[in-house]
Formats: sequence, C-alpha cells, structure tokens
Amino acid sequence: MRYQRAGDSYLVRFETGEELVGALTAFAADQRIDTATFVGIGSVSDAVLGYFDREAGDYARHEVSGDMEIVSLTGNITLKDGRPFPHAHVALGGRDFRAVAGHLFEGKVAATCEVVVRPLPGAVQRQKDAKTGLYLLDL
Amino acid sequence: MRYQRAGDSYLVRFETGEELVGALTAFAADQRIDTATFVGIGSVSDAVLGYFDREAGDYARHEVSGDMEIVSLTGNITLKDGRPFPHAHVALGGRDFRAVAGHLFEGKVAATCEVVVRPLPGAVQRQKDAKTGLYLLDL
Amino acid sequence: MRYQRAGDSYLVRFETGEELVGALTAFAADQRIDTATFVGIGSVSDAVLGYFDREAGDYARHEVSGDMEIVSLTGNITLKDGRPFPHAHVALGGRDFRAVAGHLFEGKVAATCEVVVRPLPGAVQRQKDAKTGLYLLDL
Repeated sequence: MRYQRAGDSYLVRFETGEELVGALTAFAADQRIDTATFVGIGSVSDAVLGYFDREAGDYARHEVSGDMEIVSLTGNITLKDGRPFPHAHVALGGRDFRAVAGHLFEGKVAATCEVVVRPLPGAVQRQKDAKTGLYLLDL
Repeated sequence: MRYQRAGDSYLVRFETGEELVGALTAFAADQRIDTATFVGIGSVSDAVLGYFDREAGDYARHEVSGDMEIVSLTGNITLKDGRPFPHAHVALGGRDFRAVAGHLFEGKVAATCEVVVRPLPGAVQRQKDAKTGLYLLDL
Repeated sequence: MRYQRAGDSYLVRFETGEELVGALTAFAADQRIDTATFVGIGSVSDAVLGYFDREAGDYARHEVSGDMEIVSLTGNITLKDGRPFPHAHVALGGRDFRAVAGHLFEGKVAATCEVVVRPLPGAVQRQKDAKTGLYLLDL
C-alpha cells in the first residue's frame, strides 16, 4: 500500500495481492482514522461477497473466482469495539462485463486499487442492533 | 432516520421500512439543504427502478421484489420547483449476487442504509428541458 | 458541457452526444485540474468498456450498444505524461435493468450526465508499472 495526503483526503494505492479490507483497516488504524468515507476503483481477485438475509439474521456468502474490475468500492469507516471498521460494498465487472455486487468481506487486489479516503471529524461508533443482529451506526 | 453532522457532511442512517427517496427529501428539507452530493450503501426492499427511454421521453419502471444490497447509492440534491429534489441512481445486489441497476424512484430500507450527504454552496435549480423532457441541472 | 463551481467542487453537466471521457479530460485541462476525484450519474450510449486481463497485459474491450443508465461513474483525475487523465469505471443499467460494468474507455452522453468533480491539492502523476503494464498512481 502506498498513500499520499491530499488536502482533507488520502489517495491510497493498494498493491497486487494485498487483502483489500484488511489493508484498508490497517491503513485506518495507522493513520488514526476513526470516521471516514471512501470510494475507489480498481480490480480484485477471489472476492468474497455477502448478501444479508434478514430472516436468517446473517449473511449469505459467495466467492467470486478470478479477476474482476471493481467499478465501485463504496463505504465508510467507523469504530467497532474501539477499532476502525470499514463497511464496504462493491460492484464488480467480469470478463463478460456482467456485474455482480454485494457486501465486501474480503478480496485480493488484482492489478491495482485506487481509493480516496476522506476522514470526517467525530468518532462514530457501531453498536449491535437487537432487531437485525447487525452493528449499526450509533448516530 | 438518525443523523450526525460531521464537518462539512452529514452521516445519515435510514431505518428499516422508511421509504428512502422520500426520507432523503425530508432530510434535505429539514436541514435546508438546497444543493448537495451524496453516496451511500445499505439494503432496500421493493425498490422501483427506472430506465429512461429517450424515444418515449419517459422512464420504463421495474419493481425489484425482496431485499437487495445497495452497493452504490449515488446522486445529488438540487432544487426542483423550489424544493429539494434528490436525483438518485442505484446498483443493487441480490441473493444470487447479480447486479441490477437504474434510476431509483423509491424503495423501503431493509436492514439499514448509511448515506453521507455533503452540502455544496449555491442553490442549483432544475429546469425542464424541451428536448429530453427531463428536469436538467440549470448550471 | 456546462459547469458551476460549488465550494471546493464543480458540478458539471455533460450534454447529449458529448464523448464523456474526452469531455471530462477537456474540462480538467481547461480548469487546470491536475488531481481530483469524481463521481456521477446519468446515461450513456455506445459505451466502450474494458476488462483488464493480467495474463495478456491488456484490456478486453466490449461495446455496449444503445442507451444505458450510468448508475455510478467513479474515478479520479491525475497526470499522465503531463496531462490530466481521467481513470473512470462505470456500472450501467439497461432496459432489462441488468447491470454491466467495467473500465470506461468512451461513451456518448445520452440524456444527460451529472458529475461532481472535486479537485485535490498536489499533482499526482501516473507512471508505467513494469509488472502490470498499467500506468499506476505514483504515490
């Protein structure tokens, strides 16, 4: 991972083979980012996506094998149990250009991934919500 | 809906069952937001999507039944007939992880929806465009 | 193309028939924007998408005929060979609401395209990377 501060934001370039969600978490921890918004593009291999099943109260998981273009990596960073937690969703485009999409659990950066992270003031926490079983924003 | 001001932006959490476009409109009106950009993720049920048919001069509509992940909610708020008007597009991921996408007319928040709204100075209006029949940005 | 400065950002409206990537490049050059992030929505016709094949070291290209909703235009502007270079990915929704997605090489604006361009300080360059053959961010 390489990064450069640019005004109120960071340009971050994740490298081939880095696990994207883990690397984003490490970046936030290193930079002491509690709350942020981010958006990015790039490509990923072996992404694990999630679809939240409200009846089951849990995510269905799906591994997307091979390289996919990341056409949108969208989400936020907040604090969960005191540590930075990225909540990331992705739309991916394959070799057949059809899009697959979901919550991003993990994925290895393929050629590159370019993310703009914009810290926001405040330290927003996530708290477990009894109804959904999810850690929701405590606003 | 819950929200928190964070610097020049708002973090907004929409709640299960809220109609997302209406709730975003109400939020903008309450906060006196004339012009803004927004991006969000979450999940939605019974979304009504649009595809603009230039020959017909109107949208084809399509209801997506059941819960879908919102992998990108992208758009802007401007003034239409003097009131805040969100122009929102979405990419949604289903249980089969295939993405569907279009203009968002309406949809009920499923588990949650987390949106960063960033007001911009100015009061940009939309004006009806004779050629397309759409209300375009009056820049 | 029409635009309006709004604080630290620009609201840009691209017009029917304009080639989007070229028009965005021209806008950045005219405004002397070296580094920026952008996000937009709208519609496009005859888009040419790319999927990067790491083994071939090149993009596979695919033309999407007809009008498509742009549900997310996401990317950044940096300098390549001293000139502004937009790196843009898109998710598109068709008449059947299925999404297609990839790197955006080119496309003609259909009804309209509304983009928020946010310049960032610094002049980030792209340099050719030997391993991938791509021009990566030089951070």
